[in-house]
Amino acid sequence: MTRAQLIEQIHLKKSFLCIGLDVDLDKIPKHLLEMEDPVFEFNKQLIDATHHLAVAYKPNTAFYESYGLKGWQSLEKTIQYLNQKYPEIFSIADAKRGDIGNTSTRYAEAFFNNLEFDSVTVAPYMGSDSVEPFLAFKDKFTILLALTSNKGGLDFQAQDVSEDRQLYQEVLKQSLTWKNKEQLMYVVGATKAAYFKSIREIVPDHFLLVPGVGAQGGNLQEVCKYGLNKEIGLLVNSSRGIIYASNGTDFAAAAQQKALELQKEMAVIMETSL
Amino acid sequence: MTRAQLIEQIHLKKSFLCIGLDVDLDKIPKHLLEMEDPVFEFNKQLIDATHHLAVAYKPNTAFYESYGLKGWQSLEKTIQYLNQKYPEIFSIADAKRGDIGNTSTRYAEAFFNNLEFDSVTVAPYMGSDSVEPFLAFKDKFTILLALTSNKGGLDFQAQDVSEDRQLYQEVLKQSLTWKNKEQLMYVVGATKAAYFKSIREIVPDHFLLVPGVGAQGGNLQEVCKYGLNKEIGLLVNSSRGIIYASNGTDFAAAAQQKALELQKEMAVIMETSL
Repeated sequence: MTRAQLIEQIHLKKSFLCIGLDVDLDKIPKHLLEMEDPVFEFNKQLIDATHHLAVAYKPNTAFYESYGLKGWQSLEKTIQYLNQKYPEIFSIADAKRGDIGNTSTRYAEAFFNNLEFDSVTVAPYMGSDSVEPFLAFKDKFTILLALTSNKGGLDFQAQDVSEDRQLYQEVLKQSLTWKNKEQLMYVVGATKAAYFKSIREIVPDHFLLVPGVGAQGGNLQEVCKYGLNKEIGLLVNSSRGIIYASNGTDFAAAAQQKALELQKEMAVIMETSL
Repeated sequence: MTRAQLIEQIHLKKSFLCIGLDVDLDKIPKHLLEMEDPVFEFNKQLIDATHHLAVAYKPNTAFYESYGLKGWQSLEKTIQYLNQKYPEIFSIADAKRGDIGNTSTRYAEAFFNNLEFDSVTVAPYMGSDSVEPFLAFKDKFTILLALTSNKGGLDFQAQDVSEDRQLYQEVLKQSLTWKNKEQLMYVVGATKAAYFKSIREIVPDHFLLVPGVGAQGGNLQEVCKYGLNKEIGLLVNSSRGIIYASNGTDFAAAAQQKALELQKEMAVIMETSL
């Protein structure tokens, strides 16, 4: 998918909502557990119920890997279903990978070629040559961890690396020197909306993936106040707040309702801000 | 596996060799490609030929994931074979994972419980609460990226975060305040042997996993000069130099020969150093 196509979808749907598919067998409706692939069935019904309200879906690979081979199969089926039925949706493998060059190429092949995701999240610790292999894939996006929303996020990301710069800012700055930098997006934690201003000074045009609206405590209004740019430039994620809205047989309808509330809020923000 | 058991194996085998199982279908002997699971077959024969010379094996998950479901299955079969036939071997999932707390727990479950690896490599960028969930698993080890051997490794890891400290040193220092820190090991790139001294000042007792002896240009003598401690404290990895020593039907014997050369060098170092 291209950047232009993503932006078009955002305007069509009046939504920049991303739904995180972090599927936990202990939390999904009990009646699904009798099916052959409960995880896929859960995702399928969720996607069918919310695809018109969201522009992106983000399975977190950890949840699938924790179920072993069966989990990887559920992930494969989910992305195949999404790509076939809703090719207009932007897909994110939330995998937080990153390794030396030839190995990062393998991860990129895994997520871009084999599973056919549009994007993958990548950790910056190993530097330029651990990220550039992902950027070499045309019409695919690399979503680099910049500032994360967890408590320990500041342990290293907020270290001063010079008089006027913290590590997350250095990551942003250096990343702009990398080959195919226009295929970068960034993970920016929603619980730190005050940081958005400094981030937008460095990367005014790139998309930011903002996790943590909902369960992690982020506030949509504040995120948008500082994070929106003239092409929207935000993908705001909600996982648990949507997918576990109900654990009864009405889970998909309940998820739809929660997604609709966020989409409506986004539509108002888009109308008043742009 | 416990630390004491690993140290016992090192003394028994006079070896601190780790063999990296980075299996590339384009590089393995052609005759294996006709088999049902060429990747597993390759690993199985390699392990059988070298298990008495190495104390650890380290499959890099990227190579398996790039083959999709089939690749994940090869990884499962490899670790199962290793654990059943050679339970004395220390296994490392070179996965470079790391995410917010509840998600890191999922990765830990994937590698420690589901696949039953003894250890997993983890990236520190997201801080304490992204690593501690791994450390919560008893008799399992978390191998934290400190200083990596790739060219871009210094992009961020060598940033000065204070007058007397670079980021990789800050990572080491902070990690010593984490819960169950005694279950930490560290990835330290062999091409930067001069850094070992400063690392050993911070973590004198922990094991260091040193990738990159061989194809990445590290020198075993120099690594040992600075990295060895009184309990050895090193796992030195070689991947391509061993596993692709030959791409003919003699690949396992050729790998054994390369592993033997390294083991002999290690035996001499152990005798003269301790």
